[in-house]
Amino acid sequence: MNAELICVGTEILIGDILNTHSQYISRKLASFGINVFWHTCIGDNETRIQNAIETALKRSDLIFITGGLGPTQDDITKQAVAKAIRKNLVEDEALKNIIIEKFKSKCKNMPLSNLKQAQIFKNSIIFENKNGTAPGLAINCENSKTIILLPGPPNELIPMFENEVEPFLQKLKNCTIKSKNIYIYGPTESEVDEKLENLLKLKNPSVGIYAKPGEIRLRVSCRAKNEVECNNEIEKIIEQIELKFKEQIFGIDINSMENALVKTAIEHKKTIAVAESCTGGAIASKIVSIEHASKCFNFSTVCYNNEMKQKILGIDPKILEKFGAVSAQVAQQMAASVRLISKSDIGISTTGIASPGGEEGPQKPIGLVFVGLSTTEKTVAFKLILKGSKSRKNIINQASIFAMNAARQIAKNL
Amino acid sequence: MNAELICVGTEILIGDILNTHSQYISRKLASFGINVFWHTCIGDNETRIQNAIETALKRSDLIFITGGLGPTQDDITKQAVAKAIRKNLVEDEALKNIIIEKFKSKCKNMPLSNLKQAQIFKNSIIFENKNGTAPGLAINCENSKTIILLPGPPNELIPMFENEVEPFLQKLKNCTIKSKNIYIYGPTESEVDEKLENLLKLKNPSVGIYAKPGEIRLRVSCRAKNEVECNNEIEKIIEQIELKFKEQIFGIDINSMENALVKTAIEHKKTIAVAESCTGGAIASKIVSIEHASKCFNFSTVCYNNEMKQKILGIDPKILEKFGAVSAQVAQQMAASVRLISKSDIGISTTGIASPGGEEGPQKPIGLVFVGLSTTEKTVAFKLILKGSKSRKNIINQASIFAMNAARQIAKNL
Repeated sequence: MNAELICVGTEILIGDILNTHSQYISRKLASFGINVFWHTCIGDNETRIQNAIETALKRSDLIFITGGLGPTQDDITKQAVAKAIRKNLVEDEALKNIIIEKFKSKCKNMPLSNLKQAQIFKNSIIFENKNGTAPGLAINCENSKTIILLPGPPNELIPMFENEVEPFLQKLKNCTIKSKNIYIYGPTESEVDEKLENLLKLKNPSVGIYAKPGEIRLRVSCRAKNEVECNNEIEKIIEQIELKFKEQIFGIDINSMENALVKTAIEHKKTIAVAESCTGGAIASKIVSIEHASKCFNFSTVCYNNEMKQKILGIDPKILEKFGAVSAQVAQQMAASVRLISKSDIGISTTGIASPGGEEGPQKPIGLVFVGLSTTEKTVAFKLILKGSKSRKNIINQASIFAMNAARQIAKNL
Repeated sequence: MNAELICVGTEILIGDILNTHSQYISRKLASFGINVFWHTCIGDNETRIQNAIETALKRSDLIFITGGLGPTQDDITKQAVAKAIRKNLVEDEALKNIIIEKFKSKCKNMPLSNLKQAQIFKNSIIFENKNGTAPGLAINCENSKTIILLPGPPNELIPMFENEVEPFLQKLKNCTIKSKNIYIYGPTESEVDEKLENLLKLKNPSVGIYAKPGEIRLRVSCRAKNEVECNNEIEKIIEQIELKFKEQIFGIDINSMENALVKTAIEHKKTIAVAESCTGGAIASKIVSIEHASKCFNFSTVCYNNEMKQKILGIDPKILEKFGAVSAQVAQQMAASVRLISKSDIGISTTGIASPGGEEGPQKPIGLVFVGLSTTEKTVAFKLILKGSKSRKNIINQASIFAMNAARQIAKNL
């Protein structure tokens, strides 16, 4: 079953409003195993709406139209549907009374134009609107096609979808869809793409690839008769992905690296402390943004200059002078010191060059970052030469994700 | 001149990603006085992309296509354009070398599939991609129609639009467009809306209102023959806005509160240190994300538990016991202490309840945050009861912005 969404509203075309309905309905339809092949957005223009509906009726089984059901002159969606399907609108006596009552209960006079909202097509199914006066409609068309009309305001559309449209779709369809997300750190998008080539071609279950800086997400989706069958099919795919990426996988349905780190640290009863220089609090703030972070995190510090590095972390001034603040030696001392000060199991540190100035030079280019990691067993430093965008934010973000991933692996194996 | 947007990406059709490009580009085109009559979104399917382009060429002068320019197998936008306009793709030697160089500078092997990105149409204009390998293209078609191809990732599309597509459109339309953004902290969106009523109705210059938690942005845009005329018209509007909001304005074209704070602190030669509890590094990390932050920022610490508050900040255990960590007294001590330890001019602190657990209770509900501010002259604490979403992230964000705005005002007046 193929569906198509048509969003009516000039305010979307001029960029005044973001079209969030298309995402909302698409997600809902995906969960019913209904394919969506087109989103269209058009303004409040009868001819263009009619054309869009006629085109949709040629290629889709289920057509959702949102917006244009209000009482004003530029609400013309139903008139355009009438022309496209060559059926007349008729006033529904029961609906008319409901609308009149809604105005009475608010002690407001009903503008006559609101009676437009009582017009329906013969044999259409009416969806109740608890938060407004425009009802939704499901209209049966030729060749078993269905048009579903929904009001534009989100506070009307969303409850109507959940309370009325979902049960309607459950009857219409008889299947389930499920998906899981596998998070990978390390390879580039094209490397993942090459390794997965065959899996990416699958139709059902299907595998989608989504890249963000520092993270690749693989979304494995399956449509089947029931949940058990869905989950079985998804597990088979995940096993294949695990074989290909092994330790590079940092979690399933985990959302972010900070979530993976906090989860792993709590599971393994390990505490973490952070001494940041170039990342300036980004690691701490990512960790603390996760619920229950206080179970594994006590302390962090940003020592942005050498004086504070000595004063708070006790970094040896001779080491600072000999190697500079951006060095493996200082990163190691910072990680060890912050671990000891806070009596934590794992100390994380960063020191690097995120923008021009400071120790920057041919030996220490922008993008050079040392990440220190310390446990009671050993203290190490990784040297990163971060490429790609030399923007401050990108360098901070990449170094933070690297450090959190390294700490996660340590927490897991300690 | 009529435009039409085609967004390519299966992840949008399944609801995984929200289509924000259509809004972004529509707004930009509105500022050029270009009408947008259709938004379409389709998946990574060559036939459907080709059909959408053929339809668009019949009804629009300017067709923007976003997405599907990557190196992977399902990136097929250019191939679909080639079929729709019946022209062949040719490899551009210069582009090929640029892409090869980008990989070399990252010390990575270039997958052969990336060479797809060097393919263009003869006589097309190339838009440089500073944040990725896929260039944008402007393709001249029959009947003076133009197809503009842009990459899907927002961090590639937005800079490309601003740096390359806008000048292209200015030439095309023979006009200049300028805009300035006024940032306001304090009033709600509806309060701003009421105060600005008449200004918001203007067509050219125009005023748009965009609200984010903790910030209202007013965008004043003007289209005129030349830059001088644009700027004059914009200044007149800004004067009216300044009269209405005065001290609530925290900057013009300043982008963020952290930028306003760093700029003000550097201008007034003031240094800042931060002791965070509930905000967990968010303030430090926001400050450090700004270029040149090291000129005004030396030190911050996150003391998440009482032990670290005593050890690092020397908070009096009696005060901690009597008032609890979430108290005005502790906020003041933290702010004063972090200022003294780091020899800074301004100390900022936060202590509060961002999620269930800890000191939470009827007297200390979720959303209660104390913000401390300390200078050599005085040390104060503000009590915030943050409303709206009680999510951890929202509370952290709101408290951070409040604290940075207070510090900014102090830096300005100290």
